[in-house]
Amino acid sequence: MNSQPTIPPGIVSAEDYETAALERLPADIAAWLAGGSAGEWTLRANRRAFGRVGLRNALCRVPRTVDTRVELLGETMQHPLLLAPVASHGLIHPLAELATAQGAQAADTPLVLSCQANTALEQVAPHLSHGWLQLYWQQTPERTLRLIRRAEEAGYCALVLTLDAPVQSPGRQAQRLRFELPSHLGLPNLEPALRREAVPGQSALERLLKDAATLDSLAFILHNTHLPVLVKGVLEVADAVELLGYGVDGLIVSNHGGRALDGVSATLDALPLIRQAVGAQATLLMDGGIRSGYDVFKALALGADAVLIGRLQLYALAVAGPLGVAHMLKMLQEELQLCMALSGCADIAAIDPSRLRVGQI
Amino acid sequence: MNSQPTIPPGIVSAEDYETAALERLPADIAAWLAGGSAGEWTLRANRRAFGRVGLRNALCRVPRTVDTRVELLGETMQHPLLLAPVASHGLIHPLAELATAQGAQAADTPLVLSCQANTALEQVAPHLSHGWLQLYWQQTPERTLRLIRRAEEAGYCALVLTLDAPVQSPGRQAQRLRFELPSHLGLPNLEPALRREAVPGQSALERLLKDAATLDSLAFILHNTHLPVLVKGVLEVADAVELLGYGVDGLIVSNHGGRALDGVSATLDALPLIRQAVGAQATLLMDGGIRSGYDVFKALALGADAVLIGRLQLYALAVAGPLGVAHMLKMLQEELQLCMALSGCADIAAIDPSRLRVGQI
Amino acid sequence: MNSQPTIPPGIVSAEDYETAALERLPADIAAWLAGGSAGEWTLRANRRAFGRVGLRNALCRVPRTVDTRVELLGETMQHPLLLAPVASHGLIHPLAELATAQGAQAADTPLVLSCQANTALEQVAPHLSHGWLQLYWQQTPERTLRLIRRAEEAGYCALVLTLDAPVQSPGRQAQRLRFELPSHLGLPNLEPALRREAVPGQSALERLLKDAATLDSLAFILHNTHLPVLVKGVLEVADAVELLGYGVDGLIVSNHGGRALDGVSATLDALPLIRQAVGAQATLLMDGGIRSGYDVFKALALGADAVLIGRLQLYALAVAGPLGVAHMLKMLQEELQLCMALSGCADIAAIDPSRLRVGQI
Amino acid sequence: MNSQPTIPPGIVSAEDYETAALERLPADIAAWLAGGSAGEWTLRANRRAFGRVGLRNALCRVPRTVDTRVELLGETMQHPLLLAPVASHGLIHPLAELATAQGAQAADTPLVLSCQANTALEQVAPHLSHGWLQLYWQQTPERTLRLIRRAEEAGYCALVLTLDAPVQSPGRQAQRLRFELPSHLGLPNLEPALRREAVPGQSALERLLKDAATLDSLAFILHNTHLPVLVKGVLEVADAVELLGYGVDGLIVSNHGGRALDGVSATLDALPLIRQAVGAQATLLMDGGIRSGYDVFKALALGADAVLIGRLQLYALAVAGPLGVAHMLKMLQEELQLCMALSGCADIAAIDPSRLRVGQI
Repeated sequence: MNSQPTIPPGIVSAEDYETAALERLPADIAAWLAGGSAGEWTLRANRRAFGRVGLRNALCRVPRTVDTRVELLGETMQHPLLLAPVASHGLIHPLAELATAQGAQAADTPLVLSCQANTALEQVAPHLSHGWLQLYWQQTPERTLRLIRRAEEAGYCALVLTLDAPVQSPGRQAQRLRFELPSHLGLPNLEPALRREAVPGQSALERLLKDAATLDSLAFILHNTHLPVLVKGVLEVADAVELLGYGVDGLIVSNHGGRALDGVSATLDALPLIRQAVGAQATLLMDGGIRSGYDVFKALALGADAVLIGRLQLYALAVAGPLGVAHMLKMLQEELQLCMALSGCADIAAIDPSRLRVGQI
Repeated sequence: MNSQPTIPPGIVSAEDYETAALERLPADIAAWLAGGSAGEWTLRANRRAFGRVGLRNALCRVPRTVDTRVELLGETMQHPLLLAPVASHGLIHPLAELATAQGAQAADTPLVLSCQANTALEQVAPHLSHGWLQLYWQQTPERTLRLIRRAEEAGYCALVLTLDAPVQSPGRQAQRLRFELPSHLGLPNLEPALRREAVPGQSALERLLKDAATLDSLAFILHNTHLPVLVKGVLEVADAVELLGYGVDGLIVSNHGGRALDGVSATLDALPLIRQAVGAQATLLMDGGIRSGYDVFKALALGADAVLIGRLQLYALAVAGPLGVAHMLKMLQEELQLCMALSGCADIAAIDPSRLRVGQI
Repeated sequence: MNSQPTIPPGIVSAEDYETAALERLPADIAAWLAGGSAGEWTLRANRRAFGRVGLRNALCRVPRTVDTRVELLGETMQHPLLLAPVASHGLIHPLAELATAQGAQAADTPLVLSCQANTALEQVAPHLSHGWLQLYWQQTPERTLRLIRRAEEAGYCALVLTLDAPVQSPGRQAQRLRFELPSHLGLPNLEPALRREAVPGQSALERLLKDAATLDSLAFILHNTHLPVLVKGVLEVADAVELLGYGVDGLIVSNHGGRALDGVSATLDALPLIRQAVGAQATLLMDGGIRSGYDVFKALALGADAVLIGRLQLYALAVAGPLGVAHMLKMLQEELQLCMALSGCADIAAIDPSRLRVGQI
Repeated sequence: MNSQPTIPPGIVSAEDYETAALERLPADIAAWLAGGSAGEWTLRANRRAFGRVGLRNALCRVPRTVDTRVELLGETMQHPLLLAPVASHGLIHPLAELATAQGAQAADTPLVLSCQANTALEQVAPHLSHGWLQLYWQQTPERTLRLIRRAEEAGYCALVLTLDAPVQSPGRQAQRLRFELPSHLGLPNLEPALRREAVPGQSALERLLKDAATLDSLAFILHNTHLPVLVKGVLEVADAVELLGYGVDGLIVSNHGGRALDGVSATLDALPLIRQAVGAQATLLMDGGIRSGYDVFKALALGADAVLIGRLQLYALAVAGPLGVAHMLKMLQEELQLCMALSGCADIAAIDPSRLRVGQI
């Protein structure tokens, strides 16, 4: 089933899947996957932020056991890791999201399915021990509700409403290489877009903005599902506080992997300010720039309950299929465990800001 | 008419015209256009300054409409963009400033014609929906007045007096490549320079300095035209305040694109200090280092009413003639609109410092 | 005996041995030796820290004599230098640690023998004028004690207990090149590892953590030897104070040359904070990133009584055998003397923070 | 007489002589000239410091005349420039210091002759309108006095005692290329070195240190000449104040062009602190890293009365002989004049810290 069933030599850390995948993928797909929006300022900032955070070693207080379990929305996860929603896995693997789901399951890792997946969410669900569905506002309440109902019926455990990317386009390099989604890749979770009547003087951009989620959209969703609802794309403290006040069940600090508004802050920089504002009890996740278990550790210490892994999942999928996804996740988990051990953290609760050196590096 | 009527593939952002043009232009002209004075410290600083300013996303508060109109000197402009005065478009395109003007008009963008244009200002005027004339002090009041009268009669709407470059020479690389203005390119807007009597002990530099504009020159111009007069080259707060007190109608924060005194501050760094000093009502423009609509947004948020586009206009002209100029301007406009939408700004007035993250990146 | 008995041309400073060795060594061994753990953040930080510290010149107060002697644990050393414990010299030279010991002795420099040496400590001892033994906790008190007794009987003068690396693996590049310790290289100082019973649910990492040193291990060692005991791997002020309170005879500020927990601070950055906390009397050494006598001077000025030379010793061994080790140490000593002279320091006691410019560079 | 009598194309600024010379000179001589001591930290710092200082433009207040004259030790100089003492011009040009002196005279620039010149000071003197002699302490008072007497009799106007380099060796790259002073180049200003009796236990370094200048040496010189005496190598405020108290006539802030103690501060960084401490009246010069008239301007604004040009003089000599030296100096002077004009400084006295932007760049 998987045409690349082996891990190539030279993959000795999760991060190695990035180099390996970018060598193997067609140039346009590699550019689409690796690129960020506009000048890629935020893309770079995401990575650089991790370099500004240092660790502390534990010496004689290395724990004997290392427990990475974490509770999230009432469920116990084996590791504070989820696969982030990424569109169109069909670009990367013939089995598309089914391949990714197999890898996720093998590594005990929940997957957040993108509503822009190339596989019907009902088909993916049986392969997930724990799955969430990501969605955008679907132009009308009715259309949005139909998608939510499908998710509920298929057994998804949570909804993730992405707020930071009402308009999307490939990065500049992908555009230069004329990247396009191949027509054979369907979007079986979405209804065909409603054609909007042209309004005189309205720009193409403004036509897209009409379908952006609003606070009303959010309220509608919150009142029409029993599933927990998280919002994704939060970077500003005021937004975080307001959205929790609105009743969302969790926040995901994200900048769409540097693919939305170029110039917004690195997620690792936004994270501690938001945790401080929302308090210890709020469910707070993050993604952006994570390439190792050390990065996971830093995000947890700065306030994340768990992190989502975006590009790395597709890099691993490109290189070694489901096996690659599972292997990449295992390596992240092992790096996290090693980092916890040498930092003196026997469990996830022990990972707090006192374990870091920020601004002292 | 235009020998390069198509946009080459690979141009997916305004900034791409820079690379494309520098590949296509003869090396000496490319060096003349791209270079700055001396060690190019200010040239680099202009660009770097934009990298220190971050943005904020709007999440649920993305506007439905984006209005980029701005009022400037009593006129409504469709976009907060003007083409900056640049000498000798004949180096770049056989139709010289006429080509640029066509592109500007197609993109609803005012052009500030350089008095060192290779085309008579009267010839350019009909191609402009809105044009300004840039000038230097012309050695004597009479000569200066004759140029102003021509501008008034040809229908130019404003005068821009450049103050920061009483002495000009090509950058070092252009000099090394022996760049010279070809003799066939005329300067039909300027009278032949007066030969000055040699004064014993006077250096070549001092001969040039004799013709630099003074506060008296400025006063003379202000009292002898009904057109609004803006001064270009302002970087210091004290100068800004003094010049407004003198009665100028607007200030352009500029360092001549890093081509005047090397070592002066980046325009984006000078801009907010000057806006703070001159108050909200003063007309304040800027140029220097703008390569994208994101850069435009940052300049507006830091106090500019509008920005001038210098090198990019000639890069676009070099690559695709008038069509290139229009295309480049359209891309800047669209990038600005996208940036406004994702930042939550429905109109230009909404773009203020609260939209930025300065010193937090 | 030594197949490379001459110093190659081009070696004009201790640091030159690094380049020369990395050119000569097989790629996998070079990667093993030069690499750090994970992303090599700490490896780079070690070097960068020296660049942030400046010196002051002495002008008319250059001393006539320069005395580099220092007293350490009651012994007088000719120079404030020791060879750091590094495993498996057999990878680098056919005579393994015997070759290094010859070089050390020729340069009047103590050697800290790694317990992972390829040569029996009893064999090395006669070649050392002054030797220390480094050790890890050996799974049980009895096994650890047997190693200590061997050291005592062979005449080693101090024990160094390494605390920062309970788990070890080669760096990523070495792993990619499939670096492995060749089976012909023995570890004659270590008993075969005890096979631990598998505990259900216990990870491979946790099996290793069971054998990490604890405060109890340390107490056992301190109470069962008459030799002075130093602990290696200290980076945090709180650990430094606690360990001295426990009775250790000295601290070595170290991050295992960037080979243990990636992200911990540079040793030069940690050093002055620790010296300040432990007071002037505590025995305090450091290693990490030293490549010249100037670096030695900076470390001494920031609080080290002496420094340990790690990678450079094996680089020199690789390039020119025992002669290289001696030559490298002589160059370090001469650079230190020159630096002392030009800084106005007639002896080691004169090297204090007033000789530096920190944060003023 | 001069085998390279023309300025090569491509030399459009003083700095261009650096590139041109390093391409033309034999590799070992290029390395000797361009290199600094040890890790070249200070060498790089000298240049970097200029990049941290910004300028301000003058707009309507550009002066009509620019006067670069400056008074130094009672003499009027046409420009605030001197040629710094550099040893062994014979390495660069067959006429050695005579060639440099011709260039200096053509550009109205004083030369500070190195006592390690390859030409007798009496031979150089007639070619200088204004010359100073640099010297080291010559082992004994008598020997030193004989050198001073020669300088006095030959008409030198001042003595410069270098204090920062009691020990000298070529930089590492020059050593790697086996750079040596050719035996045919004499040192006609120095008596053969006294052979010192070997003292048991004394190192080679210590033998050299015995001949370093002390405060007593300085006092001897000050009491035995009517010439003004400047000391060179001052970087620390305390030294500056003490040396002036001792009666020296002027200070030269210098780090021997990054060739003495590696790690000492950039001269431009030390300069303003020293000027502040010694007051406006003290004679204060500097060298180190100057490559343009803009750099000269910054040094003057930060407190120098004049600057010395070191490497650039030999670069120009290598490229175009005496003509090159004169041309390089003319370009520095013209760049300085342009910088003064655009900064609004009609004379040297107007160049003060208010003309700079420090820490605001």
